[in-house]
Amino acid sequence: MDRITIIKVGGKVVEESESLNSLLNQFCKISGNKIMVHGGGRSATEIANRLGIETQMVNGRRITDAATLEVVTMVYGGLVNKKIVAGLQSRGINSVGLTGVDLDLIRANKRPVGEIDYGFVGDVKNVNTRELRLLVSENVIPVVAPLTHDGKGNLLNTNADTIAAELAIALTGHFNVYLFYCFEKKGVLSIPDDDNSVISDLNATLFKKYQENGIISAGMIPKLENGFRAKQKGVKEVLITNPDNVAKGKGTRILFGKQPS
Amino acid sequence: MDRITIIKVGGKVVEESESLNSLLNQFCKISGNKIMVHGGGRSATEIANRLGIETQMVNGRRITDAATLEVVTMVYGGLVNKKIVAGLQSRGINSVGLTGVDLDLIRANKRPVGEIDYGFVGDVKNVNTRELRLLVSENVIPVVAPLTHDGKGNLLNTNADTIAAELAIALTGHFNVYLFYCFEKKGVLSIPDDDNSVISDLNATLFKKYQENGIISAGMIPKLENGFRAKQKGVKEVLITNPDNVAKGKGTRILFGKQPS
Repeated sequence: MDRITIIKVGGKVVEESESLNSLLNQFCKISGNKIMVHGGGRSATEIANRLGIETQMVNGRRITDAATLEVVTMVYGGLVNKKIVAGLQSRGINSVGLTGVDLDLIRANKRPVGEIDYGFVGDVKNVNTRELRLLVSENVIPVVAPLTHDGKGNLLNTNADTIAAELAIALTGHFNVYLFYCFEKKGVLSIPDDDNSVISDLNATLFKKYQENGIISAGMIPKLENGFRAKQKGVKEVLITNPDNVAKGKGTRILFGKQPS
Repeated sequence: MDRITIIKVGGKVVEESESLNSLLNQFCKISGNKIMVHGGGRSATEIANRLGIETQMVNGRRITDAATLEVVTMVYGGLVNKKIVAGLQSRGINSVGLTGVDLDLIRANKRPVGEIDYGFVGDVKNVNTRELRLLVSENVIPVVAPLTHDGKGNLLNTNADTIAAELAIALTGHFNVYLFYCFEKKGVLSIPDDDNSVISDLNATLFKKYQENGIISAGMIPKLENGFRAKQKGVKEVLITNPDNVAKGKGTRILFGKQPS
């Protein structure tokens, strides 16, 4: 089977033109089939503020009422997505910006209201990669924004780390899939203040230990949970890294079912 | 050759959920290959207002400074485009939202500064339908937002009527192309106040006459100029109509080089 690399990029990396340019240069160096999945939360919060729409976050997740859904649809699906695609085209890479509604790529269920009502947030139900794979076979690079749909005409907001993992898992039957989570740090740190304390290999036992002693916390936990799930479901390699190291394949590697070396 | 129908819809039709639903129902009735091209100017103006960005129009064209370019990228490429795609998916029609930068579909030159500086407005230079046709052959319906790119990383704002005509012309080598401009009226009216005074056939001589006596004016002129150009360049049929009549093929038909019957 051919190799495909899914790179999830989020945070400031894609939202400031200098770091985006640097990221796109690194992205171009990765050989073979590629998909980019991006976030855009900072821009969404900024545009929401300017529109007078209050941003509410619970456990790092955005409460998505109807007005916020319009904002994330505009910002993720329009502003951030098209800037990335324009940047890739200018580097001679034919790419296509997609959300989960395009090509019926990702269907989701609106999250049931429990203790918290997240609003228009979608939990992934089905991934259809048929047309996506056709484009990949024509050397088109999909750039995927973190929006899904319910099949009834409604868009839903879905976490970009989850989208990346779900896409990766759905492609395992067709490719050897490599999933790279790319953020500001070189990897998962064993000493939070020391950027060079990168944990090179992380297995489930170690992950549990680091969570218990508080070394791994906050937004990193769902990212790693997505990574472990992808690894468990047949993704060849899951790596947490930063833009400078993504093409080199350096960072924190997620291991499944065996002790780190 | 197979038939393909390009439907350009603009104005209130796509921006209010009731009329959008009605439009999508009509759109579904059109048999064979289809592409939708949409506008979104009213929503762009509204979002710009809410963001405190002034809207400046000259001859019905939007002056597109950097802040306005961000607004139209969000609104055309995100908000309006994804709502249409979600509506089509809910009707069991697999569709994909695109702008001119996606799949390198439409390259444009930034309009030179003349008497007026239109800002980030693009005049179409090249249309690449290769990957679009691949999707069409897989029964995917492209939904195209009126944005282009310069190949150097910059998005540009391009009139949706022009995008529809350029796409239609570019597809003439591969399909029998039908181009339908769909707006609020049943067609071009010979008596502006009488919605039933639809001109059934319009040739260049008649168009010139109607312009001279002021019957056809304002935004209708560039729309018709695009239509005449498309007809001249090999598009089989160009029709100006409204959502209720689009599936019936009724409205004002543009003729080239012969007198109306």
